[in-house]
Amino acid sequence: MSVTTSSPSTMKTATRTRLFTPGPVEIPARVLRALSQIPPHHRTDVFRQQFIRVTEALRQLHGTKGEVFLITASGTGAMQATVTNIMAPGEKALAIVGGKFGERWANLLTAFEVPNETMDVEWGTNLDPADIAKKLDADKDITTVYTTYSETSTGTIYDIKGFADATRSRGRRLVVDAITGLGVHPLPQDEWGIDVVVCGSQKGLMVPPGLASVSLAPWASSYIEGKKLPRFYFDLQKARKLAPKGETPYTPAVSLVIALEEALTMIAEEGLENVIERHRRLANAMHAGAHAAGYRLFSKRPANSLTALYPPEGIGAADVVKRLREVHGMVVAGGQDHLKGKILRVGHMGAYDLFDIVAISTALEECANALGHPASGAAGAACKAWHQA
Amino acid sequence: MSVTTSSPSTMKTATRTRLFTPGPVEIPARVLRALSQIPPHHRTDVFRQQFIRVTEALRQLHGTKGEVFLITASGTGAMQATVTNIMAPGEKALAIVGGKFGERWANLLTAFEVPNETMDVEWGTNLDPADIAKKLDADKDITTVYTTYSETSTGTIYDIKGFADATRSRGRRLVVDAITGLGVHPLPQDEWGIDVVVCGSQKGLMVPPGLASVSLAPWASSYIEGKKLPRFYFDLQKARKLAPKGETPYTPAVSLVIALEEALTMIAEEGLENVIERHRRLANAMHAGAHAAGYRLFSKRPANSLTALYPPEGIGAADVVKRLREVHGMVVAGGQDHLKGKILRVGHMGAYDLFDIVAISTALEECANALGHPASGAAGAACKAWHQA
Repeated sequence: MSVTTSSPSTMKTATRTRLFTPGPVEIPARVLRALSQIPPHHRTDVFRQQFIRVTEALRQLHGTKGEVFLITASGTGAMQATVTNIMAPGEKALAIVGGKFGERWANLLTAFEVPNETMDVEWGTNLDPADIAKKLDADKDITTVYTTYSETSTGTIYDIKGFADATRSRGRRLVVDAITGLGVHPLPQDEWGIDVVVCGSQKGLMVPPGLASVSLAPWASSYIEGKKLPRFYFDLQKARKLAPKGETPYTPAVSLVIALEEALTMIAEEGLENVIERHRRLANAMHAGAHAAGYRLFSKRPANSLTALYPPEGIGAADVVKRLREVHGMVVAGGQDHLKGKILRVGHMGAYDLFDIVAISTALEECANALGHPASGAAGAACKAWHQA
Repeated sequence: MSVTTSSPSTMKTATRTRLFTPGPVEIPARVLRALSQIPPHHRTDVFRQQFIRVTEALRQLHGTKGEVFLITASGTGAMQATVTNIMAPGEKALAIVGGKFGERWANLLTAFEVPNETMDVEWGTNLDPADIAKKLDADKDITTVYTTYSETSTGTIYDIKGFADATRSRGRRLVVDAITGLGVHPLPQDEWGIDVVVCGSQKGLMVPPGLASVSLAPWASSYIEGKKLPRFYFDLQKARKLAPKGETPYTPAVSLVIALEEALTMIAEEGLENVIERHRRLANAMHAGAHAAGYRLFSKRPANSLTALYPPEGIGAADVVKRLREVHGMVVAGGQDHLKGKILRVGHMGAYDLFDIVAISTALEECANALGHPASGAAGAACKAWHQA
């Protein structure tokens, strides 16, 4: 007796949840194990030494010989630190806004009453550094440019090297939110001339959320001196005094620091260049797999940390997100604001490999078929692109 | 052949490190295990439900039917939130300063340019609520009083019920740093009439550092509305909009939230009243044990969360701290500021029991003997006091 049915199967294909979110990401078992160690007290030599080692490893990752401050907060806390520690009252800033996280810069500046303008970039498109140069030449009052590196709401990577050329050559400062960029794309801070870089623990660094870092290039050391905006918990001048001793002004998230050391060790073992190359191949594989499954790239300059996709013609993005979760146990993000219901965002930063991309591509293909858009060959396409990349 | 020597043994008596610090404290194995779970993504129903459960459990702990906000930061971040969300520009505050954490209130207020006065209390002594009443009657501009409950630098507990009577009856607001008080001493917020209470994860709550909570009594709900001081990461109005959905404005420290739920479950299983009674007995046992070992209490109104001690006559506090660590593997804190080298601070908040107090009392006694002050009977005295308490 054979049974045929036209309605797609709802039988679960997965025994576990797989995160393909644009952060927080999957945490490697080694990092989870480190997290559950009995934490030392933070005012002991064993922790002080560990804190100094972690700071040094972050310095390598940020690509700077300058200072790195580790902050107990999400990435937004570290972003706030770069506003309140660097801007003097009345100083004017420019925010590059090409998505939700560019908007966050503008909102932060406004919350702290920093006179600011925004440079609006169409979501998912590039910004020509020449446009920044023109703006800075036209408005001499702007001292500091705040931008995103990898814009998580659109899966777009900006030409930060070009931005830095434009700011440095004009004596302006550049502050980069590299929260989904660091450990994924190259970002040699000192070499590219970036004044300040912000990162978070829960993205390329493969650690649960709760830690963030701010680095100052060697020449930017004095930026946090003198009269600045009101601050206390995020006061970097206080942090600077204690950092050489391996201490922080307020109790750090000790367990997360231990986990971060393990994650940074993993990055060092693989080699940062190899990690970056792996992400480049992962993104290529993802693009090919998604294309074969009938999806289209949203971004015109796609980041390697996450891929924003239009679903196949006639299929709703929310339906794909729902089916991925309910049938395949895979968590991806939808679009935000005007992109809500229009795109899905698939994260692949951190400890992801080709077979994770094969899995998500195959699941995307199944969703396309189940929801009425015939497609095939996604897994093979992903593999081929990985090997050719 | 017998060998006699007058120099004290340096052979290690312990196979593991024991924290008797005034926070972060020893983390129970159950909480460590929870910490190493694979964390769900924060924008999933499973986490939203968990966040709502944790918030509800915190409401019980804070003793309020009002709102509780869970913040990814150390306790100082939550303290900052109570300044920047509650004070309007120009509003005047009074800070009760009887130790380092009272000073922190004053420094915070000053950092955010809040006009403020301090009421200085001799470290380790009580403050009569009548003195607060007198001050408030004399200065009608003071809208808000900021105080500590258990002052961690001196091991002193303040009469918060009395403080709240003084503020409530005068239409002033009371903000209490209960970071080392909650889960140790009774603090029924609504019943006592306390407007705002701050707590941290790494003290009585037995979780590693990185989370903090702020509660508003039901009648204090409107305090965060209208024009307030500049804030962004710690914006409680934003948090309020998302809390009913189990969401936060910025990514929370997911793993620590999971650990916190486990710790709150442990407190619920034991029963909050029993937890508080256990801490009362622990403190009594600690006082008796320390007394028998030749130490004297520093505080005239000792807290049950930690015990500040003068060492026996002729012995340096730093030498005791050092020997406890090097020989007995026990970590205690020294004094701060003018108490540096004069006292030691022994924490016993969280998952501590009588035998922990027997251990530290015995080690304190050994240190006294080794450093030239004969003493005996500490363990027995601690046990006797526990049973009599």
